[in-house]
Formats: sequence, C-alpha cells, structure tokens
Amino acid sequence: MSVGIVTPQKMQFSDPLPLRSGASLPAYELAYETYGTLNAARSNAVLVCHALNASHHVAGTYADQPKNVGWWDNLVGPGKPLDTNRFFVIGVNNPGSCFGSTGPTHLNPATGEPWGSGFPVVTVEDWVDTQARLLDRLGITQLAAVLGGSLGGMQALAWSLRHPQRLRHCVAVATAPNLSAQNIAFNEVARRAITTDPEFHGGHYLLHGVIPRRGLRVARMIGHITYLSDDSMEAKFGRELKHAELTYTTQDIEFQIESYLRHQGDKFSEYFDANTYLLITRALDYFDPARGHGGSLSRAFAAARDVRFLVVSFTTDWRFSPARSREIVKALVDNKTAVSYAEIDAPHGHDAFLLEDPRYHAVMRLRFDHIAREVGA
Amino acid sequence: MSVGIVTPQKMQFSDPLPLRSGASLPAYELAYETYGTLNAARSNAVLVCHALNASHHVAGTYADQPKNVGWWDNLVGPGKPLDTNRFFVIGVNNPGSCFGSTGPTHLNPATGEPWGSGFPVVTVEDWVDTQARLLDRLGITQLAAVLGGSLGGMQALAWSLRHPQRLRHCVAVATAPNLSAQNIAFNEVARRAITTDPEFHGGHYLLHGVIPRRGLRVARMIGHITYLSDDSMEAKFGRELKHAELTYTTQDIEFQIESYLRHQGDKFSEYFDANTYLLITRALDYFDPARGHGGSLSRAFAAARDVRFLVVSFTTDWRFSPARSREIVKALVDNKTAVSYAEIDAPHGHDAFLLEDPRYHAVMRLRFDHIAREVGA
Repeated sequence: MSVGIVTPQKMQFSDPLPLRSGASLPAYELAYETYGTLNAARSNAVLVCHALNASHHVAGTYADQPKNVGWWDNLVGPGKPLDTNRFFVIGVNNPGSCFGSTGPTHLNPATGEPWGSGFPVVTVEDWVDTQARLLDRLGITQLAAVLGGSLGGMQALAWSLRHPQRLRHCVAVATAPNLSAQNIAFNEVARRAITTDPEFHGGHYLLHGVIPRRGLRVARMIGHITYLSDDSMEAKFGRELKHAELTYTTQDIEFQIESYLRHQGDKFSEYFDANTYLLITRALDYFDPARGHGGSLSRAFAAARDVRFLVVSFTTDWRFSPARSREIVKALVDNKTAVSYAEIDAPHGHDAFLLEDPRYHAVMRLRFDHIAREVGA
Repeated sequence: MSVGIVTPQKMQFSDPLPLRSGASLPAYELAYETYGTLNAARSNAVLVCHALNASHHVAGTYADQPKNVGWWDNLVGPGKPLDTNRFFVIGVNNPGSCFGSTGPTHLNPATGEPWGSGFPVVTVEDWVDTQARLLDRLGITQLAAVLGGSLGGMQALAWSLRHPQRLRHCVAVATAPNLSAQNIAFNEVARRAITTDPEFHGGHYLLHGVIPRRGLRVARMIGHITYLSDDSMEAKFGRELKHAELTYTTQDIEFQIESYLRHQGDKFSEYFDANTYLLITRALDYFDPARGHGGSLSRAFAAARDVRFLVVSFTTDWRFSPARSREIVKALVDNKTAVSYAEIDAPHGHDAFLLEDPRYHAVMRLRFDHIAREVGA
C-alpha cells in the first residue's frame, strides 16, 4: 500500500550553520516530509537520506501531482519493508539541492541575487548537522535508524560517526567509504561539461537569464552510464537500431541506447540546477571519514561502536562495488561493532538500490521488523 | 633498438572508393610509413592498423621532430618483438583521420571548402579496402600478418574476413567483435559533448574560424577514463590532493586526478579534429561482422578458416574485456580455425596494449618469430 497523498513541509532555521569548509550557511530553510506517526516514546523515527537526484519526497504522491511518486515508494509505506504503520519516517531535502531546501537558485540575503556559484560548499557532514537540527525541532532525540543509498548511504554512515548516540541503527545501501579516483574522474568530467558550457557564466547563469542545458545533458548522460550495469544495458538495449537499417550518420541517432541517453539528458536538464550538480558531486568527492584518522577507516569507525549496522551492496554495481561495502564491514568488524552484510545478486548495477528486488527487500524487511520490535514500534 | 629517423610518405588514389554506406570517397590520399625491407619474395610484409588517436607513425622519430616517437615504437623495431630486421612493416593513416590521409579538415574537391561534417561516413571495412589498395600499389599480394590493437584489432579481424587470401596471420589485441551498449553509450556522450559545443557549427567550424575545443576536451576526458583500469587510476592518483589541504571548491581543481584529466583533455583539443572524433567513434560503433550473418559470429568467421590467429586480451581492460576476446576465440574454434589466445594479467586496463609488458611482449615475439620462419624472413 502507498502512503497516499502527502504534503511537503518547510522549516526555517535562523541560526547560521557552521560548515566544514570554514564558511557558514546563514539563515536557511529545509523542505521535508513525514510518513506514519511518531509514537509517544518518540522512539520510532527513521530518517531517510537522499542521493544526487532525489529529495525529501520519499514516498506517496502530491494532491496536485498524482504521478509524482516518491523516489523510494516501493520501500516505504504501510506494510512495506520500512513500514509506516510502525515507523515515523522523515525525508529531508539537503541544502544546496534544488528541490525545496535553500540552494543556489535561492536568493542570497547578503546580495538579494540568486546564490548561484556563490552558494557555500556543503559536505555530507554539514547535511547531517542540518538533519540533526531538524530532529531537534521535531523533538526527536534518538532515531530508530538512519537509512540511505549511495550518497544517502554516506549520510547514514556520517550520522553514525558524528552523532552516534542519536541513532540505534544505520542502514547503508550501495555506498562506499569514499570515492575512488575513477569515481572522482567521472564527477569531474560531468562538472567540466557544465562549467565549460558558455551558458554557465561562472555559475551566475540565472542573472543572464539562461541555463547551461548542454552541460547538464552531458553530465547526466555520463552519470547514467555509471548507474547501470554493463549487463543490464546490454540486455535492455544491446546493439538495437533506432531505424530498420543503418543510416550512416555521425550526428543523428543510430542505436537505441543513444536515444535513451539523450532522452535522460534532456529530461534532467529541464529540472536540475547546474550549481546543485557541482555541489552534490563535490559532497561525494569530499566524503572520506578515514582522512581525519590517518587514512584508517577502522579508527574512524571506533566512534560508532554502539550503533548497529546493516550494509547492503549489489553484485553488478560497478560505481560502488561490493568491495567498497566490504571495506566498511571490515572497519566495523575491526571495532567489534554489530554489523550484518548482504551482497545481493542483482543485475541492475548501482540503480538496484532503488528497485524492488525480492531478496533485497526481504533483507530490508527483516531488519526493520527487528528494529520495530526493539523500539516497541 | 629504434628504427631511427623515418620519413612519412603519401600516395594518391584517383579511383573513387565505394563505401559501405553507399556513398563513395572521391580521389584521396593516404599517408603511410614503412620500416625494414621488403624481401625478394615479397613475403615479409606486416600491416599495422591504428586505433582512435594514432596514425601511420608506428615507430621511429622524424628528423625535424626528435621527440615525436611512433605510437608502437616499443613493439616495432630492430630486435623488437615485431623485428624490422626481418619484417617489412607498414603503418597507414586511415581516411577520415586528421594525421595526414584525406580527412574532414581537407578540401572537398566538389566544393573547394573543407569537408567538415560532409566527409563521408567510413567504416572499418572501408579502411581495410583502402589499405588493400595501398598494398596493391606497393606490389604486396599477401601479408605475412595484419596486426592491430583496439580499433586496430577490428581492422585486423576485418582483413581476415574481407580478404582472407591476402594475409597469413591475424594478430588482434585488446579488441572486441563489436561494441557493447555501454561502449556505444560512452562514444555517444563524447559525441554529444562535441556536437552540442556552440563552436561546432554543425561540423563546419573551420568555415567559422573556430574549433569546438570544449567538446573535444570533455570527449577526451571520458575516453581516457575508459582506457585506464579502476585499479591503475587508484594506484596512480587515488585521492591525492592538488594542494596540501582541501580548498572546498566546485570549479577549481581539488584532486590530482582532476588535474591529470584536464591536462589530457587540453592537449588532445589542441591537435585532434572534432569531425574525425565523430567519424572514428562511429566506425567503432558500426563494426559488427556478425550482423551480416544473422548475428552469428561463428558463421561470419567461416570466411577466415585459412588465416591463423593470435588473440590477446588484458585482465583489467574493462573497455574491451577478456570476455569479448573469448567471443572471437570461440567463433574461430567453432570453425576449427587455428587460434592462440593469451589473456595477459596486466594492471593497466585497455591502455596495456600500448605498453611494454614483458609477458605480453614475449607472446608477441614468439608469434612473430614463428611467422618469420614460416615466410622465410
């Protein structure tokens, strides 16, 4: 069952947020949604953290947009693996994003103009701090769990390191303890496509009344290749032609995979903000909890000894491969921290974490059933 | 030892070349180089086919450019695995390229203006036909071997299918029987980066006195990621910073890998032609010998039964993985064709075929020693 029609909410924060970069974010606003009911003991709250192209809209639809289904609707809802009959689930849009919380398209109070590329560089840890402030205001001292996939998984890990006393369980799906050189390389190419688009104007395109759509399209096409597995792309598109015969063209579409990628790029460039793309890929690049501990992930995770972990990876995910998840598991085991690890044999690459795979969802359901019993939900 | 100073040569062809697309290439010119001496029996010629970013300049240097070393100089020379004391080695630049043979930057005789994007779409098979014509003019009826890596390997395979009586041996390194959907996808993103660069002007940028450098840079950065293995990129760059500390920037360089990729992109955009990039990536996309045989590679290779093959792949090549080479081997075995296969355990990804790996070079040396004895070289 779906959570049905939901209403996004906003919360204002007037205290500036000190950022990891040394800068600070002045008064800001967070967009969020909640599903289910906070119990009397305030023990059944689960925070869901989003990845690059997602938001606070985790589940359900909007009254005026019946087709706008939350991005993790298959996982979150009444009777679903993260059961909103038992849990109070919170989705929050991160600052710097372009879906409601304060971001580069909003006005910089100091100038009265859009922040643009002047928006402060935000990190995973900064986002976790804004989420913690939101929970303060919602009266939630301790979360039953923090859950996230990909960049969202990094936020879940950062929660366990930064505020370990504020969560009982951490569920980190399809994530990594940091980006590899290849991961950073893909991000950098996407960023260069955007920043060298003549309509980027150093990040102040809104002042020029334009949008660097070409760069956004290319950035999304690159990203999309890394979200899918080689095998699933082969199974879905292979070498299928657009037309009955080859047309011998260098600029027009010849293969279906080209058509698909162009469509993904076009769609994305219609709604995503270019500065947000830069900020979020940088947050990915910067995440590296071992850095402050002489490169030792095990030493980093000493802070999270009392949190219980579920780590999930997918066999065909070449963006954040199972080997990267196993690095996290090893660091936890080194600390004798409670951790379960599931490596799901799934064909869909990195995107698998968003899909309804029965084995994956069975693992998630089992964990959240267990957590529900533990917190009396 | 190096072949030393070499002199590129040109040959004019006045007969139009019929192309696979149905169009034809009017009078054209091929740039080529030769190393070693053609023996009296004309039996010791080896043709070396080039990949995307290479040319007829396979070995040696130029008198006026002592640092311009041929791209396969570590393999080709006196006493080297492909020994120019025994073999007469030919390198030829393919039409559509930008290194000497007729290509998009040359004048279209019909208009008196640069071909630009009007240059006919050329395929691997078309290139093989131009190479065959060159051999006719050089008086070489049968090659001791055709050798190529990557796209060059596809040409070697196409030789065995199109003119099987004209080669004794085919040496296909780090190649594939066709591109996967993921391979095409990377090509397409690179092409879109070029064609959506406002300075591309539909491919007639030379008429506008500009060059789509931004697109070329991004295209090269994407390509470069696919040439290196995840592991070698990690070993070479990891998460090493450009500066002593993080600077928190979305547009400037933070990690060494970014610096390296930008440098590769910048260099490439200084000398490579954008229309050539489109043409050559399309030649890659189009290569698919099984297509004309109901999708059966085995049936396609029935034509090459009398050619002897050496197929070489590299374990960390994720662009053209060993699995793709094994498809070729299987098709040959299905035809009871003589084939040796070497899967080299090398860390360098696709680029390994250009590097001097001892095990790889030992395999090549053994094969060419054998061929030399066979042809009396």
